[in-house]
Amino acid sequence: MTKRRKRGLEAEPAAGNGILSRRIFLERALIGGAAGVTATGALAEPLAVAPWSKTPGAPFNAYGTPSHFESKVVRTWAAPANPATPGVGSSRTPHHLLDGMITPSGLHYERSHSGVPDIDPDQHRLLIHGLVRQPLVFTLEDLSRYPRTSRIAFLECAGNSGALYNAQAQPLDVQAIHGLLSCSDWTGVKLSTLLDEAGVDPRAKWVLAEGADASGMSRSFPLAKAMDDALICLYQNGERVRPSNGYPVRLLLPGFEGNMNVKWLRRLKVIEAPIMTKDETSKYTILLKEEKAWQFVFPIEVKSIITHPSPGLTLKGPGFYEISGLAWSGNGRIRQVEVSADGGKSFAPAVLQEPVLPKALTRFRAAWQWNGGPAVLQSRATDDAGMVQPSRAQFVAERGLRGNYHYNAIASWQIEASGEAKNVFA
Amino acid sequence: MTKRRKRGLEAEPAAGNGILSRRIFLERALIGGAAGVTATGALAEPLAVAPWSKTPGAPFNAYGTPSHFESKVVRTWAAPANPATPGVGSSRTPHHLLDGMITPSGLHYERSHSGVPDIDPDQHRLLIHGLVRQPLVFTLEDLSRYPRTSRIAFLECAGNSGALYNAQAQPLDVQAIHGLLSCSDWTGVKLSTLLDEAGVDPRAKWVLAEGADASGMSRSFPLAKAMDDALICLYQNGERVRPSNGYPVRLLLPGFEGNMNVKWLRRLKVIEAPIMTKDETSKYTILLKEEKAWQFVFPIEVKSIITHPSPGLTLKGPGFYEISGLAWSGNGRIRQVEVSADGGKSFAPAVLQEPVLPKALTRFRAAWQWNGGPAVLQSRATDDAGMVQPSRAQFVAERGLRGNYHYNAIASWQIEASGEAKNVFA
Repeated sequence: MTKRRKRGLEAEPAAGNGILSRRIFLERALIGGAAGVTATGALAEPLAVAPWSKTPGAPFNAYGTPSHFESKVVRTWAAPANPATPGVGSSRTPHHLLDGMITPSGLHYERSHSGVPDIDPDQHRLLIHGLVRQPLVFTLEDLSRYPRTSRIAFLECAGNSGALYNAQAQPLDVQAIHGLLSCSDWTGVKLSTLLDEAGVDPRAKWVLAEGADASGMSRSFPLAKAMDDALICLYQNGERVRPSNGYPVRLLLPGFEGNMNVKWLRRLKVIEAPIMTKDETSKYTILLKEEKAWQFVFPIEVKSIITHPSPGLTLKGPGFYEISGLAWSGNGRIRQVEVSADGGKSFAPAVLQEPVLPKALTRFRAAWQWNGGPAVLQSRATDDAGMVQPSRAQFVAERGLRGNYHYNAIASWQIEASGEAKNVFA
Repeated sequence: MTKRRKRGLEAEPAAGNGILSRRIFLERALIGGAAGVTATGALAEPLAVAPWSKTPGAPFNAYGTPSHFESKVVRTWAAPANPATPGVGSSRTPHHLLDGMITPSGLHYERSHSGVPDIDPDQHRLLIHGLVRQPLVFTLEDLSRYPRTSRIAFLECAGNSGALYNAQAQPLDVQAIHGLLSCSDWTGVKLSTLLDEAGVDPRAKWVLAEGADASGMSRSFPLAKAMDDALICLYQNGERVRPSNGYPVRLLLPGFEGNMNVKWLRRLKVIEAPIMTKDETSKYTILLKEEKAWQFVFPIEVKSIITHPSPGLTLKGPGFYEISGLAWSGNGRIRQVEVSADGGKSFAPAVLQEPVLPKALTRFRAAWQWNGGPAVLQSRATDDAGMVQPSRAQFVAERGLRGNYHYNAIASWQIEASGEAKNVFA
């Protein structure tokens, strides 16, 4: 207990401008003194007895909520383009105020094309038809009779981080730029189980999924994905899927861009070739430079963001800080995340928080001694397919800046002398 | 796609009275037809267009809640023994209505000794004192400066399943019997980091933890646990710890009985020997037979429960059913769960849902073909220390029935001809 280890802080720089060895997370290491934390604490005893320790507290409640002191921890959204349709658009997860791997369901990002329908689960039906031996209609009760499976998976809107397609860096925070990203523990029935029962025709190659919202949100996805890891989700983080996430039943296509994971799922049509639905053509085409475009490109590429520090979380003077963030890939597991405090001149590996799961958010943590001077923080993720998150320059050279979707280049926060963080391009 | 696999149901019994091979979860297998599900679905096309598909849905909201159709999915609690102190007691998680591994924070069980205090995080302090070189007082802001870690961990009240100490089986459901059990993604600062900074005296062997609630809930735990995996938690399932779980800061002692994980943590005193606090002596002593007792026995023993089927979830006639439940051990990972449909005469292995994490809930699933006749469902867990959940007879022979705490014997649901499930001793 009393054996002293050498101070990781002073002994082990790992990259430029104060990035320290991740050993600080893996071994017991003294860091507080160097962080100046003890100087902020009064050491007198005994503690004052607070008013809430002197009277009985609140009784039980049927369904709990956060403390009223956390009322600022909320989703945010832009004013609707058309005031007549306030449910068209998206709301964003406040990642700068969260930690861990799971996103609370109340703060899961929302993307709706015509608002959140109020569906009576007893009246809802799911139809599987098209190139099948036998079309099937399922009630929720029917679906509950099949074997289930669970997995922790991220969802990211194709348009997440779209603000970084601007030529100039906008004064936005992590929620406004990267908040169309969340991660839940999903439970449901494998789509392959239901398709096997319907009996898929050998000519079939694709599936059309349609939602029961007023927009009839529809996308086509490959039959191979349906037979691989597609899930008909009934539960999210233990309880029934939330209304804004598709209650009572949504499609989960792990790793595919968010809108493919059709919410309020009412229909799956097995087909030979993808259908050019309005949602395919009016929105989710990925524009490239030189008037080219990608269609039917679904998996989210390897990506990471730093959530702490980030705009709004002002550093309180020089000293020790944890740099923490999220990494993910639609193609598998995160293998490595590296962090930089000098705008990408040098990187050192971060610690990955276990469990590191395929197609799930992975929290990373790194140790940083801020000297109070200029710094630009970056993170760079690598997935187990060997894909590395590109620099902004590489991304722009490859894809240009015409797009809205699938922006996955390394992002940068500049730390000002005041301790404030700011979105920059570096 | 069209290759037909043989029907797992008919081909592969794995234990008596309809327990089927778990291969049904591991391979693609046709099960629907055998389950009689298709008979319940109308096959006509097209689907009727529901009213909620015809009008725009609801706009965004800052913090989401479950559908109003799920208003029955709530915590429940017994009327308080003393109406003047309605916050003394516990509320229970409705595991029969949940699935997956994570418990929604709003449904996490509560155990309070004097209600839930309404703590202002800016005013709250955590004191570390006693046998230390330098006592330290931390604000929440101070705590946020240290390196963090996350882990998914279960909490179980020492008194969970206490109803099974009755000599006669009571007509209770899984929530009433086993509902003092939940699992979250916890994030915070390692206690060892803070103790190393305070400088622990070589004479120290224990730590006293005290809560800021009006009961001053206090327990002693070994310094070795503090230095191993104890966590000072700030976040639960991504957001700040909920009020009923200790907002703004709670102790997590992974695998130890719930009350040791002191909520609303205000004080940690490093000491030589455990202190006989009121909570140590008036409650959490484990009575054995022959007037013996255990004190200072903290880890939760290996255990499992079946959540589906269970009382209140009436089976709809003979056919296929998934048997699903939760297994856990305070000593490590779950290695195996076996299920029985014949009251323990024969068992077959269930599938364990990945990720299987130490000191976390593990969801298990098994396949069962109910023939409509009498059945008694049981589950038996084994952990990676090789500990096996005892039968009730073994448990009673070893410990007697005088106790209230740490009941971990195999539990039984009897399936009636009506399809209803009932708590029995078998």
